[in-house]
Amino acid sequence: MKNTFGTSLTVTLFGESHGAEIGAVIDGLAPGIPVDEDWIASQLTLRRPAGRISTARQEADAFRIVSGVFNGRTTGTPVAILIPNADTRSGDYQRGPARPGHADLTAWAKYHGYEDYRGGGHFSGRITAALVAAGAIAIAALRQKGILIGTHIARCAGIDDAPFTDLSADLPRLNSLPFAVLDEARGQAMREAVEKAAAQCDSVGGILETAVAGLPAGVGEPWFDTVESVLSHVLFSVPAVKGVEFGDGFALADMTGSRANDPIRMKDGKPYTTTNRNGGVNGGITNGMPVIFRCAVKPTPSIAQEQQTVDPSAGEETTLTIKGRHDPAIVHRARVVVDSVTALALCDLLVLRYGTDWLAPEK
Amino acid sequence: MKNTFGTSLTVTLFGESHGAEIGAVIDGLAPGIPVDEDWIASQLTLRRPAGRISTARQEADAFRIVSGVFNGRTTGTPVAILIPNADTRSGDYQRGPARPGHADLTAWAKYHGYEDYRGGGHFSGRITAALVAAGAIAIAALRQKGILIGTHIARCAGIDDAPFTDLSADLPRLNSLPFAVLDEARGQAMREAVEKAAAQCDSVGGILETAVAGLPAGVGEPWFDTVESVLSHVLFSVPAVKGVEFGDGFALADMTGSRANDPIRMKDGKPYTTTNRNGGVNGGITNGMPVIFRCAVKPTPSIAQEQQTVDPSAGEETTLTIKGRHDPAIVHRARVVVDSVTALALCDLLVLRYGTDWLAPEK
Amino acid sequence: MKNTFGTSLTVTLFGESHGAEIGAVIDGLAPGIPVDEDWIASQLTLRRPAGRISTARQEADAFRIVSGVFNGRTTGTPVAILIPNADTRSGDYQRGPARPGHADLTAWAKYHGYEDYRGGGHFSGRITAALVAAGAIAIAALRQKGILIGTHIARCAGIDDAPFTDLSADLPRLNSLPFAVLDEARGQAMREAVEKAAAQCDSVGGILETAVAGLPAGVGEPWFDTVESVLSHVLFSVPAVKGVEFGDGFALADMTGSRANDPIRMKDGKPYTTTNRNGGVNGGITNGMPVIFRCAVKPTPSIAQEQQTVDPSAGEETTLTIKGRHDPAIVHRARVVVDSVTALALCDLLVLRYGTDWLAPEK
Amino acid sequence: MKNTFGTSLTVTLFGESHGAEIGAVIDGLAPGIPVDEDWIASQLTLRRPAGRISTARQEADAFRIVSGVFNGRTTGTPVAILIPNADTRSGDYQRGPARPGHADLTAWAKYHGYEDYRGGGHFSGRITAALVAAGAIAIAALRQKGILIGTHIARCAGIDDAPFTDLSADLPRLNSLPFAVLDEARGQAMREAVEKAAAQCDSVGGILETAVAGLPAGVGEPWFDTVESVLSHVLFSVPAVKGVEFGDGFALADMTGSRANDPIRMKDGKPYTTTNRNGGVNGGITNGMPVIFRCAVKPTPSIAQEQQTVDPSAGEETTLTIKGRHDPAIVHRARVVVDSVTALALCDLLVLRYGTDWLAPEK
Repeated sequence: MKNTFGTSLTVTLFGESHGAEIGAVIDGLAPGIPVDEDWIASQLTLRRPAGRISTARQEADAFRIVSGVFNGRTTGTPVAILIPNADTRSGDYQRGPARPGHADLTAWAKYHGYEDYRGGGHFSGRITAALVAAGAIAIAALRQKGILIGTHIARCAGIDDAPFTDLSADLPRLNSLPFAVLDEARGQAMREAVEKAAAQCDSVGGILETAVAGLPAGVGEPWFDTVESVLSHVLFSVPAVKGVEFGDGFALADMTGSRANDPIRMKDGKPYTTTNRNGGVNGGITNGMPVIFRCAVKPTPSIAQEQQTVDPSAGEETTLTIKGRHDPAIVHRARVVVDSVTALALCDLLVLRYGTDWLAPEK
Repeated sequence: MKNTFGTSLTVTLFGESHGAEIGAVIDGLAPGIPVDEDWIASQLTLRRPAGRISTARQEADAFRIVSGVFNGRTTGTPVAILIPNADTRSGDYQRGPARPGHADLTAWAKYHGYEDYRGGGHFSGRITAALVAAGAIAIAALRQKGILIGTHIARCAGIDDAPFTDLSADLPRLNSLPFAVLDEARGQAMREAVEKAAAQCDSVGGILETAVAGLPAGVGEPWFDTVESVLSHVLFSVPAVKGVEFGDGFALADMTGSRANDPIRMKDGKPYTTTNRNGGVNGGITNGMPVIFRCAVKPTPSIAQEQQTVDPSAGEETTLTIKGRHDPAIVHRARVVVDSVTALALCDLLVLRYGTDWLAPEK
Repeated sequence: MKNTFGTSLTVTLFGESHGAEIGAVIDGLAPGIPVDEDWIASQLTLRRPAGRISTARQEADAFRIVSGVFNGRTTGTPVAILIPNADTRSGDYQRGPARPGHADLTAWAKYHGYEDYRGGGHFSGRITAALVAAGAIAIAALRQKGILIGTHIARCAGIDDAPFTDLSADLPRLNSLPFAVLDEARGQAMREAVEKAAAQCDSVGGILETAVAGLPAGVGEPWFDTVESVLSHVLFSVPAVKGVEFGDGFALADMTGSRANDPIRMKDGKPYTTTNRNGGVNGGITNGMPVIFRCAVKPTPSIAQEQQTVDPSAGEETTLTIKGRHDPAIVHRARVVVDSVTALALCDLLVLRYGTDWLAPEK
Repeated sequence: MKNTFGTSLTVTLFGESHGAEIGAVIDGLAPGIPVDEDWIASQLTLRRPAGRISTARQEADAFRIVSGVFNGRTTGTPVAILIPNADTRSGDYQRGPARPGHADLTAWAKYHGYEDYRGGGHFSGRITAALVAAGAIAIAALRQKGILIGTHIARCAGIDDAPFTDLSADLPRLNSLPFAVLDEARGQAMREAVEKAAAQCDSVGGILETAVAGLPAGVGEPWFDTVESVLSHVLFSVPAVKGVEFGDGFALADMTGSRANDPIRMKDGKPYTTTNRNGGVNGGITNGMPVIFRCAVKPTPSIAQEQQTVDPSAGEETTLTIKGRHDPAIVHRARVVVDSVTALALCDLLVLRYGTDWLAPEK
C-alpha cells in the first residue's frame, strides 16, 4: 500500500521536505474521541529539532486539522492533518551528488530523476512530523483506554541508559522529556558524546526501547498480522531504523530454552509471566504482559566530512561535503516517531479485533 | 490480512498440526513458470526433522498441487498445495497445561478455548511446511531471473559461523546443506553444542543470516511498504523469530556516521557501494547491492524439564514436563522457512513494481 | 487481491474445472461457530445441476473440511474446504475454438496460452461450488444472529415471479427450493420456457432478487466500502452476472425525488421507512430496513448451435457447435451462489464494524 | 479500506461539506506524468453547479496540489490535492430533521451523533470535487496511453439520448460538454423536463452510459478483482448511483444465448466481436472491445416539498421542507465523477498488471 498503512484504522502520508505542505489522513478512528490540539503541538515539539544537538532549522509546525474533527471530537470520518513547510531554504538543496546513507540514489533509481530531490523530498525525516501529529491522536485515544506507550533512549553513542524498572511510573514521565532517558546522568553523558561527535563533523546512532502497558491478551492476527509483524512493518518505515527486536530479541539467540521460556503463574485469576523475555508476545499474540521492543537507529547520514559518492545526473564519481543544518544525532527525535507509529499500528490491531467503535470513550 | 500475505502476489496459509491437511494458496504467479516437484520435495526435506538434533517425528510431506499448474507450468491462477498430516499421534497431545514459550495461552485468550490445541494447532511449526512448499516455487522463479537467496546459521549455541565471503559461490552451495553453515568445522561444533543441550533436557537458539543477490535497484514502496518493512513483516511471522536487522543492524547504533555511510563509487556505468553496512537498502528501496539481514531465532520452547505454568481449563497454577518428540534446536530447520518467506515477499514487491507477468520466463 | 475477497473476514478461492480439487479458505471466522456439514451439503445440492433444465454432469461434491473446525465448531483459524473433481471427462474438452460468451479468449489474452483450458479451467462455474460451501458457513452464522438472506428468481425467460410480500415467511421458505420462486405456477411457466429454449438448442437468462432481513443500521464503510460497493464487487464476481441494482435501481432513474425518497417514521423508538425504494441503504450505510438488490444473469453461453468464433491457437476464424452437457439456464443454480457471496461480504462488513468475535454464539 | 480505494494505485478521500478543506491523495502514480492544472480546473468546472438546473451555490474550487508534483510532472510519490471550502453558509444547515433519501439518519446510526452534520458532512456530494481533481490526472494519463473515457446522459427525466455511434468521434466531443448528450435536441428536452420538475419543487434522475476505448485485452483479476467488480465497487461509491450494468446488462436477462453471445471474428490478426453485448468484458477480463457500462442515478433527494421524516436528536416524527440551494438534477454533474472514478480504477488495474511505471510517458 505504499503510503497507506493499516487494515481497519489506516494512516496515509504525503508530502516533501520543500513542498507546500506535508500531511497525514487517519481513517477509521471511532467517533467521539477528544482531539486536543495542544497535545498534538506538544508531541510535534518533541520531534522538532531543539538545542545544540539538533539542526538549527526552525519549523513552526503550525498544523491544521481540516476534516474529521467537529466540536473538538472525531466524527468517525477521515481526519486530515496538514502542516505547511514554513522555513525551507531551497537554495541549500540543489540536485547534486547523492548523499551516502540517504535515499538520494535509490529514489533516482526508482523515480528516474523525476523525484523532488530538494532536502530529500518525500524521504526526508521532515515527513515524520505528519506521522507524529497523527500518532498523537492515537496515543491519546489509547491512553484513555488504559494503554500507555513510552520509549527511552536505551543507548546512544555507546552509552547505556538505565533499564525500565516500574512502567507505571516510567511511562508517564518519559513522554514529556525532550531527551527521553530514565537516568538523567547518563542522558547528560550521551548528549556530551553527541556534541563531541558533532565537533568532529560526525554523527552517532543509538537504540530506542519501547514499552506498551495495558494491552489486553489475545491481540494480533497470526500467521501474517502478528503483533511483531505489524509493529516491525511500521517501525522499519521510520527513517534510520535498521533493526527491531522483541523482548530479549537477539540475546534470546544465545539463551537456552530453560532460560528463554517465561514461567507462567496466576494472580487474581489472571495468568502472568514472572519474567518477560518474550516481550509480551507469544505466537504473535499478546499475552497480557507489557509489549517490549527495541529499535536500532543508525547515525545521521548527513555529516560535514568529505565523502566518496557519485553524481547521478552526471553519472560520475565525485566527493561531497554536506553543508547546512543537520543533526549529529536523531535518536532522541526519532523517539516520538516510534511512539507514534506504535500507537497507530496498535489502534489498528485493536479495532480490527474489537470493532471500529472500540476506541470511542464510554458515553 | 491474518493468514494471507502480499499485495500483488499473495500466499494464504491454513492448517493445524493434527488436522487432516495443511496447505498454502499462492495467487498472482505469472503464467508459464516451470514447477519442479522434485525441487519442492527437496526443500521440504530441508525443513523436515532429521538426525539426532531434530525431533523423531517422521513426516512424509507427500504434497499435492491441486490447482494452478498445468503441463508442468503455472497457469497464472491460484496454485494450491496440500500436505496431508500423516504421522500424528494425538494421544501425545491432550489439552493440558500451557507450554511456556508457546502460543498455547495466547491462543486460549484469543479463541476462548475453541482452538485446536493438539500439537499447537494452527501455531505449530508444522504449518511452515506449507510455506516452504509455496516458497520453493518462488525461490525457483527468482533464480530463473538471476536473483539468488541463501541463508546460513550465523550463530548457534553461542558459536559463530564464518561470514559470507563470495556470494556467487556461497549462495548456491548453502541451499543443499541440511545444516547450512559456511564453515563446516564450526557447524560441527554447533551440532555438538546442540546435542549437549539436548542431553541436559534443554534447547538452544541462534541467528540466521540471509543474503539476496541480483535484486535490481529501485525495489520497495516507501513509506510503508519498504523492503525492510515488508521483509520484517513476513520474517516475524516465522515462529521463534524475535529480532530482525538489516545490514549491520544493531551494530550501526554504535557506529559514527562516517563509518556507517557506505561510500558510493561507479563501475561500468553503475553505482555500487564499497561497503554494505546498510544491507542493500537505503530509504527503504534497494540500491542494487546484496540485501543482507539477520534473524534472531529463540531456543525451542519445548524442553524436557519441569516448568512453572498454568492450566487454562482449570485456571490454576501447575508444573509441566513436556514429553514426546521435540527439537533441541530449530534454527537449522527455520533456515529454509526464512528463505521461503523472503522469496515470497520479494516476488510480491517485484511483480508489484514490474507487473504480474514479470516472473514469467522469456518466450 | 485477485482470488481473495474481504478485509477482516476473507475468502480465498482456487481450482479448475478439471483439476484435482477446488477449494476455498475462509479466514477471520469467530471461534465457536457451529459447522453443520449436512447444511453445507444441502447448499451444494442446490447449486448442483438437477433435472431436465440442467446439465447431466453429476458431481458428488464430497467436500472435506481439512482445517479450522474442531469438535464441530470453528476454531478461529482458517477453514479450508476442499472439493475433489470427480466426474471430469477431459475428452470432451480439448483446446479448440474459443466459446463465444465465455472467458476462453480473454484467459488466452491474459495467460498467454498457459491457462488450463479444460472445461473453462479456473473460470468454470464449477468453482462456485467452493464459494457455496464457504458461504454456507457464513449464511448459518448470520442466521444465528437473526440475519436472514433469501433470493428468488424474479424473472426468467421473460416471465416474472411474484414479488416479495412478507420476508419473515418468504426468506426461510425460499432457501430449500431447488427452483426458488415465490409463485410456483410462474416457476412452472419459467421451467417450460427453459425447456423450450433447450429444445431449440438455445438458453435463457433471468433476474435474481435478494433480500437481507435483520441487518442493523449503521453498517457499511463509505466512501469506498459502502454496502453497495462491497456487495456489487462480489456479486459481479459471480459468473454471468452483468448488472446489479439496489432498491428500485434503474427504475429510480425515471422517478421524481418526491417518489424516490422513502418517508421516515418511528415505531417503538426506532426509525423505519414506509417504502424501501433505496433498498435499505442510504449514503452507502444500512438504514435498518431490509437490504434488497437484483442481479441480471445472462443466458448460459454454451449453446448447441453453430457460432462464429476464432481458434486462438491457430489464430484463425472458425465456427463452433458446442457439444456435451450444458445448462439451458443457470439462473436457478446461480441463486445459491448469490446468497453465498452476499453472506460472506456481509459477514466481513459486520465483523469489521463489530469486531472479529461478533459472529460467535453467545456463551 | 473505507476512504482509500485501490491496490497498486490508490486514492484516499477526506473532507466535509462545511469543513476547512476537502482533498484527495493519489498514491502509486508513475513518475513523469505531466500534470496540467488548467485541465484539472476544467474538469472541476464540469462538476460545478451551473445554470438554471443546478444549485446556486458558487464554489471557486481553487485547488492546490501540495505534494507529488515537481516541475509540472508527477514525482512518483503521493499527490495531495486540497480544495478549500469557500462559500459555506453554515446558517442554512443546523442539525434538524433527517432529510429523506440522504445519509443523515444512517450517519447518525453509524457515528452516534458525532458526525459533522452540516450540509451532509462527509457524505455531501461536495466531496466529489476532490475525486474529480484526482480523476483528472488519471484521465489525462490514460489518454496519453491511447485510452479514452466518455460518458453521456443516456436518459434523464424519462427522455433518451441517442446511442453511441462512433466512439472515436463521440468520446473526445463529450468531455467538454457541460450537459453531455450525443443529441443536443434531446439534451434540450431533458433540461426543459428538469426545469419543469424544479418548478414543481421536485427533482429527476437519469442514466449515465460510459464507454472506454483503447483498453488492451487481458486486464482484470478474477475471481474477485474482475473489471466489473472493481468498476462497480467504485461506481457505487458515487452518491446517488443505485444500479450498474455492463454491456446490455439487465436486457441480457431477457435474451437467448444465441443472441447474447458476441460472435468473434479476426481482423489484422486480432480477434474482435461483431456485437458488444457483453460490454467488452468476458469472465471478468477485458476482451479488447470498448468497455461499456451504465449507471442509474436516482433523483436528487433534496426537494422543496414537505416530507415525512424524523428528528434523530429528538427521537420523534416530524415533517421537513428543505430550503436553500439544491439541484433539481445531478445526473449531468455526476457524469464527470463517473469518468473520474472509472479512470482511477482502470489505472489501478493497469498498473497492477503492467507495473508501477506503465503510466509514465515514453522517454
